[in-house]
This record gives sequence, structure tokens and C-alpha cells, in this order.
Amino acid sequence: MSRTEFDLVVVGGGPGGYVAAIRAAQLKLRTALVEKDRLGGICLNWGCIPTKALLKNAEVYRQFLKAKDWGFSCSDLCFDLDKIVKRSRDVANRLNKGIEFLLKKNEITFFPGTARLAKSNRVVVKGADGVEQELSTRFTCLATGARPRPLPGIDFDRKRILSYFEALVPKEIPKRLLVIGGGPIGLEFAFFYSTFGSKVTLFEMMPHILPAEDAEVAAELAKQLGRQGIKIVTEAKVCGVSQDENGVALKVSSQGEEVVHAGDAVLLAAGVLPNVESLGLEDVGITLEKGFIKVDRAYRTTVPGIFAIGDVVGPPMLAHAASAEGVVAAETMAGLESHVLDIESIPSCTYTHPQVASVGLTEAKAAERGPVRVGRFPFRALGKAVAINEKDGFVKLVFDARRGTLLGAHLIGPEVTELIAQLGLGRALGATDADIHRTVHAHPTLAEAVMEAAADAGGQCIHS
Amino acid sequence: MSRTEFDLVVVGGGPGGYVAAIRAAQLKLRTALVEKDRLGGICLNWGCIPTKALLKNAEVYRQFLKAKDWGFSCSDLCFDLDKIVKRSRDVANRLNKGIEFLLKKNEITFFPGTARLAKSNRVVVKGADGVEQELSTRFTCLATGARPRPLPGIDFDRKRILSYFEALVPKEIPKRLLVIGGGPIGLEFAFFYSTFGSKVTLFEMMPHILPAEDAEVAAELAKQLGRQGIKIVTEAKVCGVSQDENGVALKVSSQGEEVVHAGDAVLLAAGVLPNVESLGLEDVGITLEKGFIKVDRAYRTTVPGIFAIGDVVGPPMLAHAASAEGVVAAETMAGLESHVLDIESIPSCTYTHPQVASVGLTEAKAAERGPVRVGRFPFRALGKAVAINEKDGFVKLVFDARRGTLLGAHLIGPEVTELIAQLGLGRALGATDADIHRTVHAHPTLAEAVMEAAADAGGQCIHS
Repeated sequence: MSRTEFDLVVVGGGPGGYVAAIRAAQLKLRTALVEKDRLGGICLNWGCIPTKALLKNAEVYRQFLKAKDWGFSCSDLCFDLDKIVKRSRDVANRLNKGIEFLLKKNEITFFPGTARLAKSNRVVVKGADGVEQELSTRFTCLATGARPRPLPGIDFDRKRILSYFEALVPKEIPKRLLVIGGGPIGLEFAFFYSTFGSKVTLFEMMPHILPAEDAEVAAELAKQLGRQGIKIVTEAKVCGVSQDENGVALKVSSQGEEVVHAGDAVLLAAGVLPNVESLGLEDVGITLEKGFIKVDRAYRTTVPGIFAIGDVVGPPMLAHAASAEGVVAAETMAGLESHVLDIESIPSCTYTHPQVASVGLTEAKAAERGPVRVGRFPFRALGKAVAINEKDGFVKLVFDARRGTLLGAHLIGPEVTELIAQLGLGRALGATDADIHRTVHAHPTLAEAVMEAAADAGGQCIHS
Repeated sequence: MSRTEFDLVVVGGGPGGYVAAIRAAQLKLRTALVEKDRLGGICLNWGCIPTKALLKNAEVYRQFLKAKDWGFSCSDLCFDLDKIVKRSRDVANRLNKGIEFLLKKNEITFFPGTARLAKSNRVVVKGADGVEQELSTRFTCLATGARPRPLPGIDFDRKRILSYFEALVPKEIPKRLLVIGGGPIGLEFAFFYSTFGSKVTLFEMMPHILPAEDAEVAAELAKQLGRQGIKIVTEAKVCGVSQDENGVALKVSSQGEEVVHAGDAVLLAAGVLPNVESLGLEDVGITLEKGFIKVDRAYRTTVPGIFAIGDVVGPPMLAHAASAEGVVAAETMAGLESHVLDIESIPSCTYTHPQVASVGLTEAKAAERGPVRVGRFPFRALGKAVAINEKDGFVKLVFDARRGTLLGAHLIGPEVTELIAQLGLGRALGATDADIHRTVHAHPTLAEAVMEAAADAGGQCIHS
């Protein structure tokens, strides 16, 4: 006989939901978590984590392909796609088990099944066996996430028109892959498949790939991916798709011209849709805004006692944003005065080669608010980057011209997805260019590029 | 006809000297630099940089050896030691040319040769041709560095008893390598040679390797290197060495027992000696202290107008410390009120596998000053670490128990030499555990381990 009365019922076991549940349990709320599929959500099972496993394989394979540059030789180099995919699934499975363990450790009751909101602080859970169970709770937290978005006239058939679900578990490498969407997901898969032999063409609707990133960084990434053989078409509008026994044909208009691109598969990575259906939102009177659940800064919905976090409340649709929102929501429920998340301090990463990472305002956005000072440093001028033969890319930092505080950081190059952490903390603490470049950075490290870029903003760069 | 009157003559073109010269030139001092060997000093030519090139080869080779784990296969895997060494030398040469370029760009006059201080603000430079030239200058900055230290009864013969000079350009991989010294240099070479096939035994005088690092980190590194087949003998006193046609025999006493260890080569990495000879220090009256040049917090020696920086002034004997000291010295000469370096905020890195990085106080040292709060997080619990199959190691953070400020950070694991940058900045800005763990870190990154360790210090860790 499991408990049916809780302080908090979390709906959705992704990086928003399970983190909210754990934080709530730490704060002594009796907590339940409902998940219809696998703990860890898309992020752990079909997103961040398994892609990073595949992309690490791509990075290692790149080294094998360049064996000669390292002074190594080998023959008969092959890859076994099944094993590569299996490693990625094993990683996800291991971490999935980890979440199970964390729920138990924190005494969170796990209900596998779907949830529907009912009036009077009730949540109806329907298990896989169809049996319904009613939970009563003081608080509810909706963390139901999002799912791949089809385009008008182009829906997933999961054979040749793929979402990330299918792209993560390929049976073979398509000879010609057409990627729709030049955001992180589209680009990461483009890099993975290209490394393992696909001829990749990528279509982006906006004037540059990674439209949310600083234009200079996006241009550098386009250049580097182009060198790797990935063809990028920007300002591209996909007008239609057709299939026959030879493959897929995408009709794409770009800059007034309509071209048909032939491929063996299409990866459609043109955004996601929030999972707001079948939750009973209307029954309890929760308000939506542009399709997302409307929340305030503590992630309260329009209905008292019901919170919502993560992709279902809209951008930034990132796992780490969802987790942070979950912590704020849980602390608010527990009666703590939680901090308010600074949306502009949430970093963003793309794990291509080179990697891209950013936090804060782009130069263009910062300049709209007032005068800025920009510092840059190229990795090719950096000892560590030369030593490890990763010379592409740069660090670009944007500071408030008057006060010197860090407004934005835009990095492309080796390990920048790790280097961005320093700049996130710096932004949070109001660091200035002087603070950063007066901090002694270990030599030789890639992080010295951050120090040099900060110095450059004040005309004090040593190595450039 | 080159100029002979300067505002500043820098003696020594390593990371202390050339940085001091560039900073001085930025501040409009007419600057000269004297270097008897190659620009970039030991660091660039025979230290930090070429070792990092070799170690990157070791890292890549490790991946090749584990091809099967990645789902790859190849046959006849070989390495070409000459090519590996050539790459390392090419890296050093490229960067050496970079320094030459920077000197020109900053209009610094370069004098190849040795320097000797003379009275009345004069420096006598002797070129390779034996011709002497007298420079007059307002300021002099001594940045002559250090050299490998022999042990009583064990001197370098550069054939079988090696310093880092010879160890960087091996003609072959010794079957059995005996390493004396468990600091970063000894450990990095132990890792390199072990990866390429040497049977390595390493001797450390103190109770643990990396004596300056936190004991927990040092123990973890010893464990990991042990798994790689490196034998570590601590509390080891090397009593003597003998050679015959079969190799070298080291007599080592440890814990009351004397054992003779046979090897094909010995790498002696038991510290360095400051280069204070033949500089005319006595002629001008410069005071030494424990063998190093005595300086104040602005790096002034006991003689007005003469500064000294880098290894020649003593610990921390690190390239990045030398550079930072060079900046302080140059700014002081230029009449700026430069900041004072916080010695305890200078990070330290060891590029073995796993890597080690730290900044600030060890737990033991911090606890001597007052109550501390410690947070830990193991990489095996972290999504990114699992995804890239780098699960060994942990982050350990030491905070002031009362104020919460970061006192020390001790990391062992993947890319920690990059992760330490965040903690250096955090320490400089007085960051607390809450500041660090409330900063949204990108997911999935290794840097999340830092955030989780900070959360752990306050009992708020999510994933452990």
C-alpha cells in the first residue's frame, strides 16, 4: 500500500522534474514523482547525454583518422556502428539507474504512469496497466517537457524523416543526410554523421546557423564545419518533401531560388513543442501563453499550488535551465525565499568540433543597451592550443564600457563548453575585465585565452 | 647601430622576462631583452609547452589502445617516437617564433647573449661572438630562471641519468625508467613513458607524491597511476647510483629498508636551482635569501632600480607566477600602483591522466586557520564524465565554515586543469559555496562537478 498523500507531486522525471523532487525532499516535503517513460527524461535518455556519448566517439574517431599527424600508424581502421550506439545507450541506462537510486535515497515515491490534474489538489495517475490512482497533494509541479516539432507538410516517419529519437540509434550511416535546423541539435548530428561518413547538407531558416549565438562565433563555426565537408544553406525555407525508392527529395528555397536536394535521410531538428496536452490543464484552469504554460518568476502557474518548470514553460529550453527552475520552484514551495534566476546568465553549449559556448548578451544585444568594450583572443596564439593541435576558434568577451562588468562571453574552440563555467560565475559575481585578467590563470591552459581576451578589452593583452 | 639606452633591460626571455618586457613596452618604457639561449625560456622550449605536446600524444595514444571500447578496430598500431618528438619540437619552435614577433611588435630590442650587472645602472651584454656591449638603463629586471638540480652523488650524465632536457627528446623508450621526484615534472614524464611502454618506478622523498597538493588528491592520483602500472615508492631516499653495461642501479632506502632498483635510465626531477651565478649580483650588492634573489612584494631587489621575478626569486616556481610577477614589476617601474599578487591564489596543475589541479589552501592548511566546510563530488556521478568515459577522480572544495568563502579547490579528473580557472576567479572575487552552486552551469559539462561539490558543502548536492 503506497502512500497517496503528498506535499508535492512532480509530473515528469526529466532534469527539471527529478531535480525539483530531490530539492523538495531535501527540504522535507513528502514528494512523489510521476513519469510515463524513463527517469531522466529526454535529456538523459534521448538528448544531452546520449548525444554527448556519440559525439565523444566522433571526437576520438577524428583522432584515429589523423593518426599520422600524431606520429601513429595503424591499418584497417573500422568502426562498428552498433557498438558505438550501444555505448551511448549503456551510458543513458547507467545514468537512468542513477536517478532511480537518487529517488530512493531521497525517499521520493515513484509512480510510473501518466498524470492528469484534477480539482482540489488532486492528481490522477494512470499506470501502464490502465489502473488509475488518485493522489492528494499540497503542491504540484508540471515538468512534462517538449517533443520534436514537425514542419508543415513534413512529419516524422521515423524511417527516412527522422527526429533525434531515430538519429540517436542509427542502424547505418546514411550516404547523404539532409539536416533541417541549424541549432545545436541539428549541428551536433551534422557533425556526428559527417565524421562517420555522411555527406551532410544542413538548412537553416535564419541568416546564420546558431541564430541565438553571437554572429562572429556562428560565422566561425560555419567556416569550420564547411572545411569538414558539411554544406550549410542559410535563409533556407523547406517547401516540401517527397520520397521514392531512391531516397528523399527536399524542396528548399533560399535567396529567391528553389533547389531540390536529394538525400537518403532527413533529420528534422526545427524546434520542439511543449507537452501540454492530456494533463487536464483546462480542467483546473491553467493559463497558457504562446502555447507554453504561463508562470511567474517563482514558476507558479495561474492556479495556486501548481508550479511548472522546464521546456513546458518555454525558453530557454535547456536541461540546466530546467534543473535550476526546479530548485527555485521547490524552495518556493518549502517557504524559502529562493533567488530569482537571471535568464541572461544561463549558458548555452553546442558540442560540435569546434565547440561553441556562450553566456550573457551577444555583442549586438549588449550594444543596444549602451557602449561596450570587446576583447578577443584567438586560440592559435595560445601555447596550450598549439601543443594539443587545436588552434581554431577564439574567445570573445563583451564588457560594459563604463563599469567594466562582463555582459557576454562567446567562445568557439577546444573545450569551450568547460571554459564557459568561469564566465558564468564571473557574470553572476559582477566580474570586470580587470578581475578576470588579474586572476592568475594556470599555464599552459586553454583558459588563458579567457584571461587574454579580458586583457585585450583593456588594451593589455600580452600574447596578441 | 642599435640603441644602448633604455628605461628597462630585462635579463632572461622566459615567461617572466618576456611578459615583463611586453607589459613595460605597453606602458611606454623603452625596453630591451637579453636572452642567452632561446626566447620563451625553459617553459616554452624545455618545460610546460613541449611536455604538453608529448602528453597530448600520450592521451591520444591511450585512446588508440582502447579502440575496442569505443567501437573501433584497427591493426598494426605503431608509434613513431621521432615523429612524436618532432611534433613537440615543432610546437616549441612555432611558439618561439611567436615571441620573436611579439618583441618586434612591441618594439622591444632583443639582445642575444649573456648579461652581467655593472654599477651605475649598467648592464653588460656579451654576444655569442664574445663582443661586449654596455647598456645603460633606469631599471633592470632579472628573470634568469632555474635549472635542474642534481642530487648529492647523482649528477646528470645526459645519457642514462637524465634531466627534463633529455627526457623531452628521447631516441627510444627505455624499457625500465626510474624517476626520482614525485612532483609534477616527475609524474608527467612517468605517465608519458609508461603510456609508451616503459616500466616506470617513481621515488618520492615525502610521504605522498605531489607533496604540495591536498593529501586526498595525491592518494587518488597514486591509485590511478598504480593501475596504469607505475610503481610508486614514497618516503624514498636515493642513496646512490651505479652504472654498468646493463644499465643503472639506484640504491633507495624507504621505511628502513634499502633496495637496489635496476633501470635503463634515470630521470632526475628532484627540484631546480635558481640561476644566480655570473650575473654580477655581488658586484652591485644584491642580497640573496636561501639561494634565491630577495625581493619585496613589487619584486624590487635590495638594490634600487633592479627587480627580479620568476624562478630566480623562489616559489611558487611556475610559469604563470613568473608572468604575473613580471606584470607587477613592469607596472611598478612605470609608476603605476600595481596590485599585490596573492600567492595563495596561484593555481597549480599536473597533466597526468587523470589530471590534477588546485588553487588555494589544502584542507589541512585551511583547517589550521579555522573551521572549514568541505564539499566533494565524484566524476563517476556526473553525466558528462560517464558519457566521455572519464569517471575517475573528484572535485573537493574547502570553504570557510563561517563566511562560506572559497579557501581551496582540489581537483583530480578529466580536464580539471581547465576547470580550475573558475575556482581561481571565484577565490579572487571572494565567492561563497552558494555563489558557485547557484550559478547555472551548462549541462552536460564536467564543470557541473564544481557546482555539485559547492552544493555538497551546504548539504544541497543533487546528484550524490
